[in-house]
This record gives sequence, structure tokens and C-alpha cells, in this order.
Amino acid sequence: MRLAKLSPGIVREAVTRALEEDMPWGDVTTDTLIPARLACTARYIAKDSGVLAGLDLAEAAMAALDGEVMFRIHVADGEEFDRGTVLASVEGRAASVLRAERVSLNFLQRLSGTATLTRRFVDAVAGTEANITDTRKTTPGLRALEKYAVRAGGGQNHRFGLSDGVLIKDNHLAAMRGLGAGFREAVAVARGGAPHTMGIEVEVESVAEAVEAAEAGADIVLLDNMSTEDMRRAVEQVAGRAVLEASGDVSLETVGAVARTGVDLISIGRLTHSAPAVDISLDIEIRAGA
Amino acid sequence: MRLAKLSPGIVREAVTRALEEDMPWGDVTTDTLIPARLACTARYIAKDSGVLAGLDLAEAAMAALDGEVMFRIHVADGEEFDRGTVLASVEGRAASVLRAERVSLNFLQRLSGTATLTRRFVDAVAGTEANITDTRKTTPGLRALEKYAVRAGGGQNHRFGLSDGVLIKDNHLAAMRGLGAGFREAVAVARGGAPHTMGIEVEVESVAEAVEAAEAGADIVLLDNMSTEDMRRAVEQVAGRAVLEASGDVSLETVGAVARTGVDLISIGRLTHSAPAVDISLDIEIRAGA
Amino acid sequence: MRLAKLSPGIVREAVTRALEEDMPWGDVTTDTLIPARLACTARYIAKDSGVLAGLDLAEAAMAALDGEVMFRIHVADGEEFDRGTVLASVEGRAASVLRAERVSLNFLQRLSGTATLTRRFVDAVAGTEANITDTRKTTPGLRALEKYAVRAGGGQNHRFGLSDGVLIKDNHLAAMRGLGAGFREAVAVARGGAPHTMGIEVEVESVAEAVEAAEAGADIVLLDNMSTEDMRRAVEQVAGRAVLEASGDVSLETVGAVARTGVDLISIGRLTHSAPAVDISLDIEIRAGA
Amino acid sequence: MRLAKLSPGIVREAVTRALEEDMPWGDVTTDTLIPARLACTARYIAKDSGVLAGLDLAEAAMAALDGEVMFRIHVADGEEFDRGTVLASVEGRAASVLRAERVSLNFLQRLSGTATLTRRFVDAVAGTEANITDTRKTTPGLRALEKYAVRAGGGQNHRFGLSDGVLIKDNHLAAMRGLGAGFREAVAVARGGAPHTMGIEVEVESVAEAVEAAEAGADIVLLDNMSTEDMRRAVEQVAGRAVLEASGDVSLETVGAVARTGVDLISIGRLTHSAPAVDISLDIEIRAGA
Amino acid sequence: MRLAKLSPGIVREAVTRALEEDMPWGDVTTDTLIPARLACTARYIAKDSGVLAGLDLAEAAMAALDGEVMFRIHVADGEEFDRGTVLASVEGRAASVLRAERVSLNFLQRLSGTATLTRRFVDAVAGTEANITDTRKTTPGLRALEKYAVRAGGGQNHRFGLSDGVLIKDNHLAAMRGLGAGFREAVAVARGGAPHTMGIEVEVESVAEAVEAAEAGADIVLLDNMSTEDMRRAVEQVAGRAVLEASGDVSLETVGAVARTGVDLISIGRLTHSAPAVDISLDIEIRAGA
Amino acid sequence: MRLAKLSPGIVREAVTRALEEDMPWGDVTTDTLIPARLACTARYIAKDSGVLAGLDLAEAAMAALDGEVMFRIHVADGEEFDRGTVLASVEGRAASVLRAERVSLNFLQRLSGTATLTRRFVDAVAGTEANITDTRKTTPGLRALEKYAVRAGGGQNHRFGLSDGVLIKDNHLAAMRGLGAGFREAVAVARGGAPHTMGIEVEVESVAEAVEAAEAGADIVLLDNMSTEDMRRAVEQVAGRAVLEASGDVSLETVGAVARTGVDLISIGRLTHSAPAVDISLDIEIRAGA
Repeated sequence: MRLAKLSPGIVREAVTRALEEDMPWGDVTTDTLIPARLACTARYIAKDSGVLAGLDLAEAAMAALDGEVMFRIHVADGEEFDRGTVLASVEGRAASVLRAERVSLNFLQRLSGTATLTRRFVDAVAGTEANITDTRKTTPGLRALEKYAVRAGGGQNHRFGLSDGVLIKDNHLAAMRGLGAGFREAVAVARGGAPHTMGIEVEVESVAEAVEAAEAGADIVLLDNMSTEDMRRAVEQVAGRAVLEASGDVSLETVGAVARTGVDLISIGRLTHSAPAVDISLDIEIRAGA
Repeated sequence: MRLAKLSPGIVREAVTRALEEDMPWGDVTTDTLIPARLACTARYIAKDSGVLAGLDLAEAAMAALDGEVMFRIHVADGEEFDRGTVLASVEGRAASVLRAERVSLNFLQRLSGTATLTRRFVDAVAGTEANITDTRKTTPGLRALEKYAVRAGGGQNHRFGLSDGVLIKDNHLAAMRGLGAGFREAVAVARGGAPHTMGIEVEVESVAEAVEAAEAGADIVLLDNMSTEDMRRAVEQVAGRAVLEASGDVSLETVGAVARTGVDLISIGRLTHSAPAVDISLDIEIRAGA
Repeated sequence: MRLAKLSPGIVREAVTRALEEDMPWGDVTTDTLIPARLACTARYIAKDSGVLAGLDLAEAAMAALDGEVMFRIHVADGEEFDRGTVLASVEGRAASVLRAERVSLNFLQRLSGTATLTRRFVDAVAGTEANITDTRKTTPGLRALEKYAVRAGGGQNHRFGLSDGVLIKDNHLAAMRGLGAGFREAVAVARGGAPHTMGIEVEVESVAEAVEAAEAGADIVLLDNMSTEDMRRAVEQVAGRAVLEASGDVSLETVGAVARTGVDLISIGRLTHSAPAVDISLDIEIRAGA
Repeated sequence: MRLAKLSPGIVREAVTRALEEDMPWGDVTTDTLIPARLACTARYIAKDSGVLAGLDLAEAAMAALDGEVMFRIHVADGEEFDRGTVLASVEGRAASVLRAERVSLNFLQRLSGTATLTRRFVDAVAGTEANITDTRKTTPGLRALEKYAVRAGGGQNHRFGLSDGVLIKDNHLAAMRGLGAGFREAVAVARGGAPHTMGIEVEVESVAEAVEAAEAGADIVLLDNMSTEDMRRAVEQVAGRAVLEASGDVSLETVGAVARTGVDLISIGRLTHSAPAVDISLDIEIRAGA
Repeated sequence: MRLAKLSPGIVREAVTRALEEDMPWGDVTTDTLIPARLACTARYIAKDSGVLAGLDLAEAAMAALDGEVMFRIHVADGEEFDRGTVLASVEGRAASVLRAERVSLNFLQRLSGTATLTRRFVDAVAGTEANITDTRKTTPGLRALEKYAVRAGGGQNHRFGLSDGVLIKDNHLAAMRGLGAGFREAVAVARGGAPHTMGIEVEVESVAEAVEAAEAGADIVLLDNMSTEDMRRAVEQVAGRAVLEASGDVSLETVGAVARTGVDLISIGRLTHSAPAVDISLDIEIRAGA
Repeated sequence: MRLAKLSPGIVREAVTRALEEDMPWGDVTTDTLIPARLACTARYIAKDSGVLAGLDLAEAAMAALDGEVMFRIHVADGEEFDRGTVLASVEGRAASVLRAERVSLNFLQRLSGTATLTRRFVDAVAGTEANITDTRKTTPGLRALEKYAVRAGGGQNHRFGLSDGVLIKDNHLAAMRGLGAGFREAVAVARGGAPHTMGIEVEVESVAEAVEAAEAGADIVLLDNMSTEDMRRAVEQVAGRAVLEASGDVSLETVGAVARTGVDLISIGRLTHSAPAVDISLDIEIRAGA
């Protein structure tokens, strides 16, 4: 599937904030040492293999400081690369490139980290029907970026947050039960209160509950921390009456087995909360020109 | 050393942004299902061992939604905890706690991840004179928080960004050399242009350069990607004329050897760009009360 | 159904902006004429009948200027009132109440306008299964508030915006057709790309298209500008395979007939783009005290 | 009179906020279905007759998402149009136009609504000396835009808010009276405290008060809710010593009679709080190109 | 006349920005050295004589960092003080007071500087009818604060900016003349286009122009850089038909003579662009307590 | 030394805020009187001699309102000029230039004021080794701009604020002493807690303390309010073991004597808190063109 670009507004805001954070009142070293007339060419080089994400942010970081820096893309977001690949290159004032270097790399390394880990999970379930999806366990302030990186890695997004999806968790159910209500009432109340464009998802902890939730009208049932054996039985017994999402500490080692139970989706927190950064560096060659 | 608290302004801004991101126009599930009169008690429980960081953010997330939620601290930021420890507890309206749960956990898990990894490096150099320090390879927008987590883990902070410290890197030197200048001129120009409260740090790639930089008047010399053998010789030959910082892909396995070379500081990017989150959950028990 | 409160963050931001707009550098008249020691009691009085919405905003406007103004609610948001009813009352410094008066009324009058018009539509479909829902034709910058007012009036919200719901409109379909694809492909592509928590809605213009969309797997079918006769046939032929939403210049006169066709939802732009304000005034009685 | 353009800063801020509201993290439908290479031409078409206002906002909404969309104006702000008129047209990437469509229309429809209603009032007082003016009963956050729409409709603006004009209302007078002061003292104190560039306006409820206020030195006297008979007498007895403004539930039916009393200004809240939107649509034709 | 307080919103925004500027990520010195348990009492002491302005900002700076710091006012804004006077005192955590000290002083010193200079001009025209007023030559971003300081000094405010007052300057007139129009047309066009609550002010450079402007209907005539002799003649010949404002490099030495010409207002740029700060210090006494 | 430009982000934010402050909803005079087709040429002319600072802000103010105004620099920031010099010129729409005139001048006049006063101090210490430096006594919200102006005047910047430099003042020391610690411990604790890139500065009040501080390891010693005689002895006795900064009410008359004591730096609050504005005007010549 095509990977849609990030909205210009999201890119602008993230880059502005990052540059202000790194350089609230100038770059003392570059301001002092590097004459404005020096030019450079520079190349983003992969020090690891991986899947790329974040080029628009890297480019916007350069452009925010200097509208005349040229940015050329060699590998597109969502594409795989090997160690040593030149991912992109820039050309322009040396001082500008030096100032924006770290911010551009911080975006690229982190988002490529999430894209790369996502791709590994996606590859690990190849040949099954399961999709890999993210969670709300994202870096505070970076959710839109990290969800984009998940898409770049080939994953599918879960709801963005609390405002755009219904997920009835154990605590919501416990509260409903305290009020004398069960799955059926919870689903009905949620459907009545939520926009009709939202599916209703319910978290369950056993096969019996999965069946009960599906029969109560849930569109999606979240199988929380179940054994693969139980997941398989849930798939069998729910029999297509609801989309099934598996969740709970799934790793690269276990995800294949989970996928083979027949669940539709596997949500994985570590895509966003614990993906190691991909090592990328910017090799700068300074020229007299400008 | 005492761990100073985060500024209230930093906490407020980070929490506001995270809540707006997760819940731009309400929590459909909780709004629909949980009556305002239901109360709860809830406990933050460690699912891993680690070092804590981020309590003020977790508390502020609750307070931003509901000024009447009580937040009690059981383990302080900077303290170690074992799996199963109750780190903090809250009491108040169930709906408010459910809404703020994920945001409070996202801060706690991520910052505790950095604090925990930092502590592991600090422990690995115990018995040497070396301090562990961070880099500018931080999550865009979260630098102040991540630097706090490094301090909570027992590390020391490097400069915050480009505005508050001079670090003359290879590219700056290359530019200076193109202009016919060397270490001595670079240090002199930087010292003349920077506030007098800033030390001048210079990045070098060999023992000879380290000595040259120290003799040129650098306050700090960054030994980039050197072998421990070379670091040891740099320590010997610089002989206290400059603070020495080691850098370059240092891991938990190698950090001890690096520290034993006699360098003063070891800077480690992965403290902030690749620390895995610590698993923490919020166990909520809903009560009729309120 | 219970009416969940607006998030404190939304209320704070809307009120801050409105006060800054009305009073960027003080209230010349009150600053000049009204001594700080004067107190008052004041009552919000309905000059029309209607349904109330916006009390939290009115209260927050007072509180933003003066934390000691007491605000008492007599009629709750979502409740009907007759002309002459005292809706709420305030007590405190006269100068503060005079300064916040207009902003508090502007919120109350406008949101009550939408709540009141919504209730009229809801009442007009009483006895049918149809729900009244809103659209994206809202006042720029006030969508969350206006959607709240629709809920206060008894309506159900549609998707909040472009990010949280899929609605395949005629132009999207035309583009797909230009690429050789039809309903089935459009629904499949959208389902593959959107979070699994989103239902897929498709806009159609004829009974045949409605059936085609439902068979293509659309969760919701939007019947755009159809005659009631055609809507009835669409209800019959879709036969429960999709939720049906009617749309297109529905008025208080025609909404009953539309509802009786058996559609599930009727979306009405004028709830938010053309609802006249409800007339509410603040009667202030100034006292010596304070 | 010429209609001055809105400040670029006001346009930018309003459009940014509206786009973030409608599309906080992308347009799922368009992102998924519409390839970036598809182009379109589109035309804004009037579904009603009216007076146009808001073109700069519509254009800025397109430009904010895609700097390459061409926007052509066919009818200028402030001009009348008939049903069916092409008001403006755009050309560019189909995806960009689809994303900005609703926001651009929401501005155009609402502001044209106010401009159209204002023009109707202006036309209804044609042949008299009276001007039509607005009030502070505006949509929170949109005052500058709505006041622009009033000018586009041919009206004159009243003070912008509490900071830039003095209007001594009944409650201010009641407070002054409690302190033993009357019209004369109120006007004197206000004139002493306000910038000398502000006229002093006083609200009165009877002919006698109107005369008293004018004699007390008020520059403008607001005749609140008086009969046309009383207004006529106020005009006669004030005899040009103050500008006279009529106020109080004036409708299209009654405004002519009010104007013929000889008052200088008639202020009308409904221009901004209850003007129905003008129906405008965007007809999009998708092309292969780009 | 009473001095109305600054709006809470203005105070909050100015203080937040100043604290973020001075302390974007903490106070390294205090964070490192001062334990949270140490308390202090501290006194704001005048090192010069002057007129006070800015207490609300000083108090808000303390409160923004620590809600438990007690702030006591000894001298009110607008009051005169001698060298050595204790202006205010605070009590609370030593660390908080040390962090907010400089920001609180920066506001107090600068605003008291403007209030003090204003008072000197006001005193220099005592016994005449002339008022002292400010200009738009203010510090970018601080206009509302500086205009407040002018009021605290006993001055009267001119228009706030370009949006809330009409001032037809030489360049506007030159443009009008190029279009074949003169004073009369300029005043008429401005009055027709501006809100009726605004007086029309015209800048003139000779006695003849002053008379012409007054006869053209200007409410206020600005005598720009005229000799006192010419001002006197302008006063005589305008004869009360317009308010007269004198402007142009008026100093403490010359202001008395200007005032005695009989002009109504004297506007002075240096009140805000060149007032020297009043020297105020904070004497802190640290105690063990807390 | 080269004068590095202000960051584009700082310029943009300062100019946006200043324009919004001066013209929140338009320029009534210009909007009403000046047709869009009128063009002008205008010249910034010095009415005093001085040193220039702030051109980027003046240019950005024009550009923010009208991207087609041409701005030409005749004298660069940091250069001296005589009375009567044309500093810069603009060409473009008359209405745009009139709207941006005051904001552009307010920046230029104020920053040139600081640059000019700084240059006077720098000239007064010519022939000595002492540098002139600023303090934190800056205008709230303008610190980055004022520090730039100090550099333009030939001064050196001190730390930016509390986050990027350690300055142990009398109160910090008093607190340490209350805890049984002295200079040595204070320096050690600060060095342990601060980033290694920061020098440690200590404020002292006597020659003995200066020596004690230097021996305790302070990198910089601030001689507060000492006699020049004592400064000379401090220079002698510290003998190069620390950088010495003189502070305390230094004037143009006394700065030479202070510099000749041999101190390295002289910090001067009045550079930023009391520099009078340099008088600059914009001469506008309106043309028919455009």
C-alpha cells in the first residue's frame, strides 16, 4: 500500500520544537567558527541496515534554518536499506547544515528504528493473515510521527488515542459489572454514545469471554495475554463474528506462532516504546564555495 | 548527590501536550461507560526491576484532569526497585484515573528506561573515576525530561544543546583548516566568541591530536572512537591538562575497560536514543464511593 | 444517556482565547468606573425557551478573571428551560462579573442554540429508530464545543474530522473509478489502510449504489440527497447489511418523513452552521459589600 | 468604501487552527485512496444568492496544505452573487484539494452568511442616514473575521472589544449611582481614564436620560430598547450634541422604521450570532495529470 | 484616579515567557547547591527613589515556581518611595526565591523606571491643564505592561496600537493629497471607515494646518515638532474645536513650557523607549526551617 | 570577530509577537485611507550617531506583512554610523510599509541603543585586556535580542540564564555555610552536578575571598562591588589561577580605571536595562505606481 506523507503542519510543529530545544539562542560553536561563505555537500549514511522513515522531518529541519539548502532523497521512506547506503544528500551553506545536523538525525534514527522493528515483525508473520499494529504506548508528543513510522514499516495503525476509538478494557467492564451490567450492556451503551463510524472493541481474558463479547455485538475483540492455544480456540469459536486482536508481550520469537492461531491483528507496544534507534550519520564535506 | 526536581513549567507543558495528543476531544469509552460518581484506588506496579524517573509527570497528568485525585509516592525518583514493587498509588474518581492512566505510564516507563540503563552503566564503572554522561541524541521535544532521567540514574549531563556549550567537531576543524587555521586558532576564536562561563571542548581522533588540543588550550578533549589502548595513552600524555571524554559506541560490556583507561567522562548516546522502556502497570480497583 | 463533561483542557483553551480576544489589554470602562470593592449578584436569565449547553465555559470565563467569583448552576447542560428561567447565578466582585459577562454569554447563547435546534430535530423523529447526527460543517475552531452541544441536545456525534473516520465521497469514488476501481476496491483499500477500529462509510446517490456499497463491505452507507421513496427502498434492499445515514438539506419539516423511511441516522449540517443563538441575559445587581 | 484585506497574521492563525482541528493527524480516506499524482480542477459554486466574504481564508487553507494549488477569484469579497455563480476556482493536486475542501467552505459559508445578512440590513435602511453596525455578540475566537464580514456586507464596525472603546452600560451607571455619582461624573471619570482617542458612549433607557447623557458630554448615546417614537424624540431633543445609536432586537422588518427616526447607527447582534450560513459547494473534477 | 490592575492573562503570559527565557531547563546553581528544605525571608529594597510599578508581575514570578511562597506588599504600584524603602517582602523556600529573584526584579526595575520618569513629567506640568501621554515607541512585546507603568506614573494612555485608534500622519496625508484629497476628505473617509467610538486624530506641522484640521472635523490635532510659540497660537486659533496634542522630543526641561501653551496632551516617546531602570535589589536571608 | 546572525526562529517569533501587539486586527488608518495600488520608497535615517543592530528584525517586520517589499541594507549590524546616515531603504506597497514602520523602528532603535552603549564601554577600555560583558538584567522576553545587540556593540556575552552557567552568589554561599560548607565544597558540589562544559563562577566581596575561591577551584571569580584598589590586589594575588570578572555599578567614567586593574571581564547591567534608544526615523515617499 502507498505510504501517505505526514501533514505539513505536523512536520512543521515537530521540527520547530526540536530546533528550539537544541538551539534556543544560536549554535555557539558554528556561529563562532564557521564563516557564512563556506559551502558543503553532505550525505546521510546508514551505519546499520533497516527501513527508512522521517525524511520529510530531516528535510524540514534543514529548510527551517536555511531555505537554500538542497535536499536530495536517495532512498524513500518505507524502503529497506543496507549498511553503508547513502540515504539522502544535502548541499548548501556549511553553517546551516552543521546546525541542523543533529536534529535531522534524531528524527531519522528514531523513526527508522520504529519502522525497522515493525518490518521485522511484519516479516515474521509473512504467509499468515495477521497484521501488525501499534498501541498507545508511544513517546509523549510524538504519536503522529511514530504511527507514521509504523506505517512505513508495513504495520497498520490502531486508534490514535482515546478520542477516536472505543476500547472497553477490564477496568471499564469491572465498573459496568459493579453497576449490574455485562458485555452486552457495555457494548450497547458504547455504541449508543460513540459516533457510528467507530467500531466497538472489547478486551477479554478467556475464550469464553471472547465468545461472549462477540455475541454481545463487539466489532473487535482484544485477546489479552492469552496462550496461543486459547487464541486458536477463540478464533475457532468466535468464527468470524468479530475481528480478533492479540495482545500481550509478543516478541519477534513468538509473533509467528501468535499469527498462526488465525487472529487478525497483533498489537505490539515495543514498536514504539522500545525500538532501538537505527544508526545513521551525516558525512559532511566542506567546500570553499558559496 | 541530590536530584533536583524538574521545573514546574517543563512538567506542565509536557503533560499538557501529551494529554491533548491522547485525548484531543475526550475519552469516548470512559465518557460513555463510567459514571462520574465511581471512585477507585490504583497502584503503579513494577513489572521489571529498575530505577524510577518521572513521578512528577505522572502526578501532573492526573492533576491536569482532576484536581481531586490524590497521588502518593512510595518509591522516589532515582531509587531502585524490584519487580513487583508498588511505586506509587492514586485515589480518586475512576473516570479521571482511567483517562490519565496511559499518559502517566508513558512518561514513567520511558524515563525509568533511561534512568535504569544509565544506572547500569554507572554501576559498570564503579570503582573508577569516570562519570557517565549523555549526548544530544535525545528524543525530539523531550530533551529536558531525558536529561533529568539520566541524572536520576546517576549520570551527569553534557551540554543541553548547541546554545550552551562549545564542542569543536571534526567538521568545524576541517573548515578551520581550510581557512589555514588549526587547533590553537579554533580554540582561541571559540573562547573569544563564547561566554566566558563555557569551557571549550574539542573532538579528536588520535593521541597526537589529543595532546595538540590540550596544548592549544582546550578545557575538555573528546576522544572519538579510539581504542582503549589509545585512550590510556591520551590520558597519560595529556596528563591532566584537560578533562578527557570518551565517546563512540560504548556498551555495557566495554564501558568498564573504557573507564579504567583513566578518562574522566564517558558519553553514551544509547542512554537516550535506545533505552528500552521499563514495564510498569497501573492496577485499578473500582469502588462505588465518591 | 449521560452527558459527559467537556475536557478541562478544551474549556481552558476556548475561554482563554475568547477573553484575550474581547479584552486584550483590559476593560477600559470597568477599569475606570468600577471600584474593586463593589460586589454583585447576577443571574443568567433565559429570554427564550431552549436546551442549555455551555455552563462549564461560562463558569470558566468568570474563574479565569477572578478565582473568588461563586458560580451556581440552576439548570444543567442538556436540560430544557422556558423563557424567564434562571439558568445560573454568580456572586462576587462586580468588576470581574462585568468583564466576563459577554464572553460567558457568547458561549452559552451559541451552544444552547445548537443544543436547542438539535433537540427539535430529535423530538421530530421521536417514535422512530433514527438518530440525529452532526456533520463537519462546524464553526472553525469550535468543533469540540459544537459537538458537545449536539450531544447536549440529544444528538449523536458523527466522526470528529478527517483523521478519525473514513468517508468515501463521490470525489474519492470518481478518482478510484479513473483508476479502474469501484466500490469493492475502494472499501477494501480503505479498510486495509485505516485503523481496524474505524468503520468504513461510503456515500451513494442511488438505491442501486447503496446496495452495491453494502455488498462491497461498507459498514455505513450515506444516502446523499435521495428522495424519501428511494431511501425507503434502500432500507429495504440493503436489509440490515449496513448502517444507513440520510443526508442532504433535511429540515424540521421533512426530518420526520426521512426518519420513517427506516434509516438509522440523519445528519444535519444546520445544527452547527446555522443554529440561531438562544437569547440569554445576565441580570446584575450591584451591592456595596465585598 | 474600499474593503481592506484581513491581516495575513489573522488569516494564518485561523486557518492553521481550523486545519489542525479537522485533520490533527491526516485524512485517512484521502491518504488511503487518492494517489499523489492525481490532479483536479474545482469550482466554488453558490447554492444561494448572497454577498461573499472569506476568500483569503479559503485560499490560505489550500495553500497551507499545498503551496502549488492555484486559486483564482471570480467574485470579490463584498460583491453580491446569484445562485449558481462560480465564486472561485482551484487547480492542483486532487488530494490536497480534497483535504482542504471542508475547511475552506466552512470559512466561506459562515462569513458570507454574516456579509449577506448585513447587506440585507444595509439595503433595508437605504435612503436614510443610518449605518448598520455590529456588536460584541460574536462567535468566540472569530471576532476579527466576523467584523471583516460585517464590513464586507457594507456595515460599519463597533468597538472591537472591552479594551478599545468605552461603553458605560446600565450596570456601570448603577454602580456609579451607588457611589453618589451620575451621568456627568461617569463621563468625566471615563474620559479622564481612557485614551483621548476614544469617544465616550453611554447607554440610556429613556429620552430624558438621552438628553442628560448628551449634556453630560457623552460623544455617543446608545438608545437601548426604545420605541421608535421615543427614538424620534431623542433625536429631536439631543439635536446633534451626540451621535445616537439604536439597539435592541432590531429585525429586517423593523430596521427601516428605526432608521427613519434619524438615529445615526443601528447595532444588530444577529449579524454575528445568528446569521445562517450561505450554501456554497466545491465541485471537483479529477484529472489524471499532475 | 484609581489604578486598575493588569489583567491576569497578561501577567501570566509575560511571567511564563520570562521564566522560560531565564531558566529553560532549570537553575544549575540552585539545583545543585540549595537543599529544598532551606527557607528564607527576603525584602525588595529600593536603591533609588522612584514610583513603583510591577508588583503583580514580581509576585506572579514567585508563584509560578512555588505556590507556597508568601508575597507581602509594603508599597503599592503608583506610590512614590525613597531610597532604602522596603517595597515588598517574600517568605518561603530559599531555592524558589533564588530562582525567581532576577525575573521578578527585571519586571519591577523596568516598569518602575517608566513609572518614575512619567511621574517626573507629570510633576513638571503640575498646575497646568496638560496631561502626559505615551506613544507606540514601546518595547516590542511589552506594550501592555509599559502602558500600565505610564498609568502608574500618573500619565494617560494614548491609543494602544494601529487597530484601536485613527492617527492620520503626514504620510497618510501625502498619499491622500496625491489622490487629490485634503484634510476634509481624509477625516471624512476615516470617520466613515472607523468604528464610531474612535476619535479621529490628525498630525499637522503648522498653525494653519492645525486650524484646517480642526475645521475639517478632526477630534484631536497632533502638533508635531512645533515651537511653543506656534503651539500657543494653535491653541488660540483652534479655540477648543479640537483636543490638541503636542509631540516631538519634549524633555523634562522643556515640558513645562509646552504645557503652559495650553495644549491638552503632551506625548513623550522616552517614557517607554529610554526610561532608565530603577535600581531595586532583593535582600535574602536564608533560614534553616521549612 | 564576525557577528553571527540571529536564528530565523528567534526573529520570526519576536516580529510576529510585536506585530500582533501593535495591530491585533488591522491598521484602521491605513486600511481606510491608503489604496493598495500606492507604492513608496522609504529610507531609515539616523537622527543620532551610534552602532547599528536589528536589521533582520526590521526586514522581517516588513516581510511578515508583505512578501513583496524590497529591503536594502546600507549599513550592517555592528557598524558605526553618523547622524544623517541612510541605514537601509525599502521599496514596495505604501500601505505595507506604513503598517510595519513603527514595529521595525522599535526593534532598530532599542537594539541599536544597546549596541551603541556597549561600543562606548568597549572603546573606553581600549588598550586594556578587559572585555565588556552583559548580565541577566535584560528586558523580559528580549534576552536573545539584547545579547545579540551586545555582541554587535563589540561586547562578549555572559551566560544566557540560569540553565547554562553556574554562578555561586552570596546567597548560595550563605546557604552552604549554614550547612557547614565553604568555597571548596560549594565549588566541588557545583562541578559534580553541572555539565562538565560549564565553568564554575563564584561571587566574592573581598580580596581574601577572591584568593580563597580561586584556590577552591573556581574557574571564574566575580569581584562584586570592590574598589579598584582591591581589584588590583585581587588580580595580583589570584595570579591567573582564575578568570576575574568585575561587577557593580560601573559607568563610562569609571570603566577605564576598572579595566586597568587587570581584570579580564567587566559586566555591566545598564547595557541592557538602561540603554537609551537611538533615534532613527523612516522617511517615506509615496508614489503612484505599484
